[in-house]
Amino acid sequence: MTMNYAKRMERMQSSEIRELLKLTARPDIISFAGGLPAPELFPVEEIAKVSHDLVLKEGQQLLQYAASEGRPSLRAKIADRMLAKYHTEIDKDAILITTGSQQCLDFVGKMFLDPGDVVLCESPSYLGALNAFNAYEPDFIEVPTDDGGLIPAELDKILANNKKCKFIYVIPDFQNPTGRTWSLERRKEFMEVINKYNLPVVEDNPYGELRYEGEILPSLTSMDTKGLVMFLGTFSKVFCPGLRLGWVAGKDKSVIDEFVKIKQSADLHTSNFDQGVVDAFMDTYDLDAHVQKIVALYKHRRDVIIKAMEDEFPAGVEWTHPEGGLFLWVTVPEGCSASKVFHKCIEMKVAAVIGDAFYPNEKTDRSMRINFSNMPDDKIIEGIKRMGQAIKECL
Amino acid sequence: MTMNYAKRMERMQSSEIRELLKLTARPDIISFAGGLPAPELFPVEEIAKVSHDLVLKEGQQLLQYAASEGRPSLRAKIADRMLAKYHTEIDKDAILITTGSQQCLDFVGKMFLDPGDVVLCESPSYLGALNAFNAYEPDFIEVPTDDGGLIPAELDKILANNKKCKFIYVIPDFQNPTGRTWSLERRKEFMEVINKYNLPVVEDNPYGELRYEGEILPSLTSMDTKGLVMFLGTFSKVFCPGLRLGWVAGKDKSVIDEFVKIKQSADLHTSNFDQGVVDAFMDTYDLDAHVQKIVALYKHRRDVIIKAMEDEFPAGVEWTHPEGGLFLWVTVPEGCSASKVFHKCIEMKVAAVIGDAFYPNEKTDRSMRINFSNMPDDKIIEGIKRMGQAIKECL
Repeated sequence: MTMNYAKRMERMQSSEIRELLKLTARPDIISFAGGLPAPELFPVEEIAKVSHDLVLKEGQQLLQYAASEGRPSLRAKIADRMLAKYHTEIDKDAILITTGSQQCLDFVGKMFLDPGDVVLCESPSYLGALNAFNAYEPDFIEVPTDDGGLIPAELDKILANNKKCKFIYVIPDFQNPTGRTWSLERRKEFMEVINKYNLPVVEDNPYGELRYEGEILPSLTSMDTKGLVMFLGTFSKVFCPGLRLGWVAGKDKSVIDEFVKIKQSADLHTSNFDQGVVDAFMDTYDLDAHVQKIVALYKHRRDVIIKAMEDEFPAGVEWTHPEGGLFLWVTVPEGCSASKVFHKCIEMKVAAVIGDAFYPNEKTDRSMRINFSNMPDDKIIEGIKRMGQAIKECL
Repeated sequence: MTMNYAKRMERMQSSEIRELLKLTARPDIISFAGGLPAPELFPVEEIAKVSHDLVLKEGQQLLQYAASEGRPSLRAKIADRMLAKYHTEIDKDAILITTGSQQCLDFVGKMFLDPGDVVLCESPSYLGALNAFNAYEPDFIEVPTDDGGLIPAELDKILANNKKCKFIYVIPDFQNPTGRTWSLERRKEFMEVINKYNLPVVEDNPYGELRYEGEILPSLTSMDTKGLVMFLGTFSKVFCPGLRLGWVAGKDKSVIDEFVKIKQSADLHTSNFDQGVVDAFMDTYDLDAHVQKIVALYKHRRDVIIKAMEDEFPAGVEWTHPEGGLFLWVTVPEGCSASKVFHKCIEMKVAAVIGDAFYPNEKTDRSMRINFSNMPDDKIIEGIKRMGQAIKECL
């Protein structure tokens, strides 16, 4: 039978991008296309021990249905951590634990979007967020960016001329896909514009703790005086993504209460086991020390990949220099087609994500996203060498 | 700030029902309002052991991002189990593992419903499903039922006069809230009507294995010749709900592929840890033997509660006799108000869910849902005694 689906199904991730991503997953390819953490750093033995002890200690409660809001002691730890890491004071009751922060993105769409509403985002922006919002049939307006991230004056112009904007989605720290970070000045200017128009903000912060150099900057949420900002966090990048654990938090508890209603109908609650394991790990071991190991490794890999690009990429190719996170952004010279480079790369058994996947409207055919967190040095160097060759052949 | 939410937020679970449910959760109350499995049967020591061994054995892969479809070896086990338990042959690749089967309900709404589309359901039906669908702004049409479940001839009449029906949601085995089960004859008649109109069917089967007497009946899915039926299953009632693990399966893999697209944008994938734990448990221990313990205990509790009702409830009160599952349905005599009984019960420190919560449109004020899986005998007997007294005072 051909099913009569809802209209939104026509807008779920385009088959074109799905097919391109499939190409990058072939096992014989050196792939910079993913976004996977380095699994060799997962604290396997520690997790085995805390899981065992936790189930024995509180099995009947741990394995039972639980509150939609999440495990109280874990919510308290998240509140403490947001204060310590991002100077962000949050009431622990204004935190909802979710099945990864991808679930928060889906909930934001569900909570705010009627068909035809407008979502603002950085240009380019995270593909997974665009897909999540797309299911609720919005239009997108892309806010221009430069090397310093989103340009507040451009946002102001857009908001002056458009009344249907429901929220803006941003990643101020080590953005996916570009690796860019907003300066403190930019953050302040941004909040001025937001406050002027009372525009809700979704601040996605999956990578903030993975800073290799410089100081962690205050979150937008910490600057929020009106309850406009929703902060999305996750344990996927500082701990393990196979446990699906994210959260949404905000200054205005009534907004989080609406998220809780959505959570109840979406999946009742996040895995109680996963929540307990992270909670018990943080009681028993030092998560900060673990994060420092990740930071040291990714910093090293960033240095290796940038050195390789300097050595192998032809003149005219540009790339970002992330101060943290998992990604950087390569721009090929004018007149060179990134999609041509992509297909040449696949021929040469190396892959990245084609940059146009990250633009909801504009297509530039000039860029690629590169992930460097998940690969040993020799593969990074060999992969970039092949990519450099592919670019040269497309010039 | 007052946020400008999407229209659907007005339709999320009514505050009236939320407030009533809160009353039932007071710690001093004997509550038949929940739907919790008996935690004393959770295989705590076994889970502690398999968790520990599993993380040590395959930690790096287990704790990493994983495929949206779910753990391959667990999907294969689910396919085997559907064949063994429900005579239902399913390709293991036509199974998507979800964050509890509540997530399947949300996905069904997302996949099929534009605002104003029609959802058909049994009258009454499961509150959690109605809430999940409600987020996608449908209208509901209730199909009349009798002691044997949904009446196929009534469904035929509705479908003859309504072209906007997108799917029907049913629970043929030990239905929530009534505890009723459809006979084999009813199932066949139902499938004839469905095939006549090519109506998609959501067959929710959380309790099917918990049959205390008689033979397990074939699922609707096993009778599906056109790829119209989506089967929703869960480990919450046969294993533990704190691990959030459900699935959707069907004869037509292309339908499950659409669910996978939704899964990717909703939460990427279900907890890999939870999936591994159930999978490893089934490799190491005998899940069937575990289910038999649950069946024996719930059968005993059903017998205790029905005996108590016979002893304590006044003449004219009726109740269902479930052959399995966790719930039964009490109907008070004509002229007696169930909501009056509910409030009198709360005064007397006993609770059930008021039946009207399970009707999307019709309100009868005559019924209550009673859960009996989660309470020792003495509390069951004392609770029913109080409830009988409350009913008597309201007659």
